[in-house]
Amino acid sequence: MAARMSRRGLLGLGAAGAAAVGAGVVAANTLFDEPPVAHAASTADPFPFYGEHQAGIVTPSQDRLHFVSFDVTTDKRAELAELLQEWTAAAARLTQGEQAGPFGAVGGAPEAAPDDTGEALGLPASGLTLTVGFGGSLFDDRFGLAGKRPPALADLPKFPGEQLIPEISGGDLCVQACAHDPQVAVHAIRNLARIGFGKVSVRWSQLGFGRTSSTSRAQATPRNLMGFKDGTANLKLEDTDLLREQLWAAREDGAAWMAGGSYLVTRKIRMTVETWDRTSLAEQEQIFGRNKGEGAPLHGKKEFDTLDFDAVGPDGKPAIAADAHVRLAHPSFHGNAHLLRRGYNFVDGSDGLGRLDAGLFFIAYQRDPRKQFVPVQLSLAKDDPLNEYIKHVSSGLFACPPGVRDAGDYWGRTLFE
Amino acid sequence: MAARMSRRGLLGLGAAGAAAVGAGVVAANTLFDEPPVAHAASTADPFPFYGEHQAGIVTPSQDRLHFVSFDVTTDKRAELAELLQEWTAAAARLTQGEQAGPFGAVGGAPEAAPDDTGEALGLPASGLTLTVGFGGSLFDDRFGLAGKRPPALADLPKFPGEQLIPEISGGDLCVQACAHDPQVAVHAIRNLARIGFGKVSVRWSQLGFGRTSSTSRAQATPRNLMGFKDGTANLKLEDTDLLREQLWAAREDGAAWMAGGSYLVTRKIRMTVETWDRTSLAEQEQIFGRNKGEGAPLHGKKEFDTLDFDAVGPDGKPAIAADAHVRLAHPSFHGNAHLLRRGYNFVDGSDGLGRLDAGLFFIAYQRDPRKQFVPVQLSLAKDDPLNEYIKHVSSGLFACPPGVRDAGDYWGRTLFE
Repeated sequence: MAARMSRRGLLGLGAAGAAAVGAGVVAANTLFDEPPVAHAASTADPFPFYGEHQAGIVTPSQDRLHFVSFDVTTDKRAELAELLQEWTAAAARLTQGEQAGPFGAVGGAPEAAPDDTGEALGLPASGLTLTVGFGGSLFDDRFGLAGKRPPALADLPKFPGEQLIPEISGGDLCVQACAHDPQVAVHAIRNLARIGFGKVSVRWSQLGFGRTSSTSRAQATPRNLMGFKDGTANLKLEDTDLLREQLWAAREDGAAWMAGGSYLVTRKIRMTVETWDRTSLAEQEQIFGRNKGEGAPLHGKKEFDTLDFDAVGPDGKPAIAADAHVRLAHPSFHGNAHLLRRGYNFVDGSDGLGRLDAGLFFIAYQRDPRKQFVPVQLSLAKDDPLNEYIKHVSSGLFACPPGVRDAGDYWGRTLFE
Repeated sequence: MAARMSRRGLLGLGAAGAAAVGAGVVAANTLFDEPPVAHAASTADPFPFYGEHQAGIVTPSQDRLHFVSFDVTTDKRAELAELLQEWTAAAARLTQGEQAGPFGAVGGAPEAAPDDTGEALGLPASGLTLTVGFGGSLFDDRFGLAGKRPPALADLPKFPGEQLIPEISGGDLCVQACAHDPQVAVHAIRNLARIGFGKVSVRWSQLGFGRTSSTSRAQATPRNLMGFKDGTANLKLEDTDLLREQLWAAREDGAAWMAGGSYLVTRKIRMTVETWDRTSLAEQEQIFGRNKGEGAPLHGKKEFDTLDFDAVGPDGKPAIAADAHVRLAHPSFHGNAHLLRRGYNFVDGSDGLGRLDAGLFFIAYQRDPRKQFVPVQLSLAKDDPLNEYIKHVSSGLFACPPGVRDAGDYWGRTLFE
């Protein structure tokens, strides 16, 4: 019997990644106090799957996204827990560049459907991370989980101006797949969906490219589709103290099973880029509060110059306008609330009105959305002049459980035990 | 006045690409008898824009696609020709890693809207190619072009089983943007759309990833979303004689203005991947006529083993079934008709029925679709067992004019003169 075949082994790319996954057991990453990120130097390498925290949160943002939300279609708690175990086993393989199951497209029995759909055969791990989250609806009366709903997973309020489409919002479960190669991210989501056949159904999914934030100081700040650098002031993996304080849920937060996890907010933000593109450079820069070329504060010269909201321009007016985006979103006006953002640009074709269907798929992780995303977004929704050019059309809120410690552990074990 | 700023110059990446584009004039590529492709060794480098043929046809397939179809909204022939001149100037810049216009996001007048939308500032050329095409509808009575419609641009017949959606089919003009970085491809399309404001309107657009064919023997054969290698027998840039015979339109073909151009067929082919994923490995391989791991003919061992349609298996039946995809599509059954394919996988989210909205955006270039795409597709549409898993939902046919020879030339000059 031809046993499991490594994706990279198939093309003879050698043992670079295979050593870590030999004999069916992936070595545990026990460096719990270090971010599980520093090992992937090249874009082909894998990130460790096991760890205190899930990968895909502080992991330096990869370039591509496939995000999926599922509705659970079984009403059996045991089947749901079993699915999470099967997903965990598949994710441990996929993130290391292996096929989804032991009997893949190559090496499987010819009379059976392959365990793996095959389109990533020959492709390396490509920095794939898979991050799972539980929506508020999972804590209804179907699975006996109502008593375990974390306080921080309180439904988001309705924000002024949002125009949410229910069909592409919410969901019982989510999986965020990030990778340097979209084919690898898509392959992973597709295989998890395939494994979940009969238990879950895809509710919505979103592809993204061109990460719009950096999560490490080693990364250059990328640009969003308004042409501005995005995420200059983002929470970064090097901010160890702030991560403990503002990113990771703790035992004392009211849901012990979430200790080491984090809360994820997604917002699909459609941009009317055609209108934006006809505004003047000066107006665009006033709206953001930064210049477009360098990303520097309007009173400064360099991207990382400290924002000074008291600075005045040559005309005696504030250099950064009272309603500038950077001012409204700044932690100093929200009790020092930070977010770890790792969103992506999207273009979903065109909208039938001669315009690109484009924008930002916003992704932010945090310890408690009630204290972080919600107050910041309430302020932006009310006053941000950017609102003339954007529209929130989808929203998601998910509790992302702690990391999988080793091969005997699984996504959500602390919730189901 | 701060003049045009190179995208790569902005980040101080130096003169690697700047030498070719100094002083506002891009040096012409005069190597007309060689494919204009061999110069881009790394993924960041530019391909030459000027040449006998448009880039983006035999250019080794880049990894990402943004394809757009436009309706022309002006009815003035002069405005249309002017737009093509403006697009050509912008494309000559964009493909070399420059901003779309001389007064970009940086270096422009603050009171004006920037010539460039900015999201590719700091990104290198990334192998961007832009390829323009003219749809049959452009040759109606609006622009006085009816007499110039090439015979080879005859409307495609209706194929059995196709379920075309008019809103995402056809169009007066198309632009194919291919690049190694989707942000660069999207940026180019968006800026061409912006330049065309008031003269053209986006009819439909499509993003793709994971090129599904190779156009050079130097490239490994990639896989489609059915998990099979795709394009093993594709026409490749090294097939110089076949390219002359089957890819490039010639003066004697009935439309002299198209000499050096090529005809482009696009088909958006939705795959029901969930159903496919539940079929056995043996059935999948029978349908294709090749094995899944290696891509070898079912009678052979290696991907590039010559197909032998007379070979029999151990059971005495043909090794490659009478209706296998590779047999039905093979040039030997269609008067040696080849296609140069350079399609892309797509995932457009999900379809509201719990399934991924995924498939293949098929792109094929050829000298005469009446003798190449049409007979092959008629045969496939009638008999291919793959039809159980696929559905053609969009179709496009475009005449792609010859290349732009130098800075005094423009896309479509031979048509409008």
